[in-house]
Amino acid sequence: MKFFILDVDGVMTNGNFYYSVEGKVLKSFGPDDSDALSILKKYMSIEFITGDKKGFNISKKRITDDMGYKLSLVSTMRRKEWIQEKYNLNDVIYMGDGIFDVLVMNAVGYSIAPANADKNAIDKADFVTERIGGNRAVSEACLHILKKFYGLQSLEDEINSRNKLDTGEWNIC
Amino acid sequence: MKFFILDVDGVMTNGNFYYSVEGKVLKSFGPDDSDALSILKKYMSIEFITGDKKGFNISKKRITDDMGYKLSLVSTMRRKEWIQEKYNLNDVIYMGDGIFDVLVMNAVGYSIAPANADKNAIDKADFVTERIGGNRAVSEACLHILKKFYGLQSLEDEINSRNKLDTGEWNIC
Amino acid sequence: MKFFILDVDGVMTNGNFYYSVEGKVLKSFGPDDSDALSILKKYMSIEFITGDKKGFNISKKRITDDMGYKLSLVSTMRRKEWIQEKYNLNDVIYMGDGIFDVLVMNAVGYSIAPANADKNAIDKADFVTERIGGNRAVSEACLHILKKFYGLQSLEDEINSRNKLDTGEWNIC
Amino acid sequence: MKFFILDVDGVMTNGNFYYSVEGKVLKSFGPDDSDALSILKKYMSIEFITGDKKGFNISKKRITDDMGYKLSLVSTMRRKEWIQEKYNLNDVIYMGDGIFDVLVMNAVGYSIAPANADKNAIDKADFVTERIGGNRAVSEACLHILKKFYGLQSLEDEINSRNKLDTGEWNIC
Repeated sequence: MKFFILDVDGVMTNGNFYYSVEGKVLKSFGPDDSDALSILKKYMSIEFITGDKKGFNISKKRITDDMGYKLSLVSTMRRKEWIQEKYNLNDVIYMGDGIFDVLVMNAVGYSIAPANADKNAIDKADFVTERIGGNRAVSEACLHILKKFYGLQSLEDEINSRNKLDTGEWNIC
Repeated sequence: MKFFILDVDGVMTNGNFYYSVEGKVLKSFGPDDSDALSILKKYMSIEFITGDKKGFNISKKRITDDMGYKLSLVSTMRRKEWIQEKYNLNDVIYMGDGIFDVLVMNAVGYSIAPANADKNAIDKADFVTERIGGNRAVSEACLHILKKFYGLQSLEDEINSRNKLDTGEWNIC
Repeated sequence: MKFFILDVDGVMTNGNFYYSVEGKVLKSFGPDDSDALSILKKYMSIEFITGDKKGFNISKKRITDDMGYKLSLVSTMRRKEWIQEKYNLNDVIYMGDGIFDVLVMNAVGYSIAPANADKNAIDKADFVTERIGGNRAVSEACLHILKKFYGLQSLEDEINSRNKLDTGEWNIC
Repeated sequence: MKFFILDVDGVMTNGNFYYSVEGKVLKSFGPDDSDALSILKKYMSIEFITGDKKGFNISKKRITDDMGYKLSLVSTMRRKEWIQEKYNLNDVIYMGDGIFDVLVMNAVGYSIAPANADKNAIDKADFVTERIGGNRAVSEACLHILKKFYGLQSLEDEINSRNKLDTGEWNIC
């Protein structure tokens, strides 16, 4: 596995769109996901895709400006094709939660869904986290990937070994 | 069944009204409901009603401006009469969550309540979703309707058949 | 029982205070509580107290401006005395959720706590709702009071009888 | 035990960061934690640390301006060292929820995690609260500390004894 591609809403957030009279104004991101991705990114290329056009700039603020990852606007209906054009599908781990994500999950090498994902996504995913989106689902997914595909034995050992080398690099809350 | 009429607060949202010193300023909508309604709307006429006058413009931003559905201001106490004046009650599926929605549920052809609805609404509803409002309750209701009344076998087949015809039409997140 | 006195935060809300860099800016109120109180207020005098000075104007916007009830600023430590000075304690039903509310619950005629209240409050309360604050706890409490103290048999009958007399009065969402 | 050091996000809040297009704009604090800390502070020195640089001013508004406690910006990766430089580690009770907090928990005299903490933090903590962060986890932790380390028998007695001496001091909601 070389590429970890994640959906944003419902995966990095609880899926909620907070509306004012001006429209979609807030999204709610959660703890530890950024930290866990910081560990995983030494092993895999990580990027995000979202189908949310109206909320794109909110997601971009978190994913790109604050966390430093690439974010692309890709409709769920066209995700499989989009991934296929760029990567070997078998090299891709995809994490999504939506009603149409089953289309992507059928195609990629490995798929992950958060606990509160759409039922079809949960049935289809290779791994379902115990935590919900925006509440450590991505953190849990990262540790699962590190153990399953990269032989991580103990998070503590991993943290301690890294701590000596690059203290301060992590922790983009 | 020809008409699907949905309440907004507690059905499309988690029921919460976020208040600042200015009053009601935010509501929280959820994932997949818009996508699932996009599938169902080929089979049924879909519209929304709300009793929330002060929060009407917030709901309208989401339901009408962003999702494209009609939204009418109708007190729960007068919903049965309002529906009756426009439609044959037996042709209507109603989804609501409130303490007075039992009045509507008694009258329409088929009724649905989200998991976190008022107890009386839950007892009276023909179908109760496993998910709560603002967390895929409407998405689940749409799939239930498609299976029960329109013989949908597999969501994946439905998605794939449509994908060829109108790629890009869905996905108003 | 003549007086129903309710705490606001954690009872009418989920207890959360949303902070920006400006301080406390949002609270989250829920569905049905306003409707259920509208039924109960024909039987009892209803008022609210809060210990939240900094968030008082947010609570006041909801409780007084939008719902029409009196709201007083009373520290939990002085609530028992405050109630005692105004009313016969035995005539009062109190609903609260906090760590100090046990002091009030010991003194009043009847006490109610939402499902997510402080443990001591839950142990002491005469009735604990199944729903949490900001998610129909007050609505559930109102129906409990109507059944226990005023012999309500069926909410539906009550609604129907009132519907004829004062259509449109309820429904301050 | 002389010092109680608490993380902020996920401990005093539910861990959520609410983003607008401007970035991180809101955090959600909960009930009773401020009141319970007011009791504990007569027995222990209490201070807060956070790794959240971008949200520091939001946390500071709640923790320092409204509640009156010291708040320091300390990366989770450097927390153990930071504590060690200031205090005897054995005198410190630490409460944290994050993926890296296991490093701190290994070092201090006693550690506490909220119910929704990272799995490793939960496994390592000496005490895990039943409540989640932002929903009385800190209040529960305070009562646990008072009972375990200071022989508190009954919260009610404690409240009543204090009530006579310093009425009005508590209750910074």
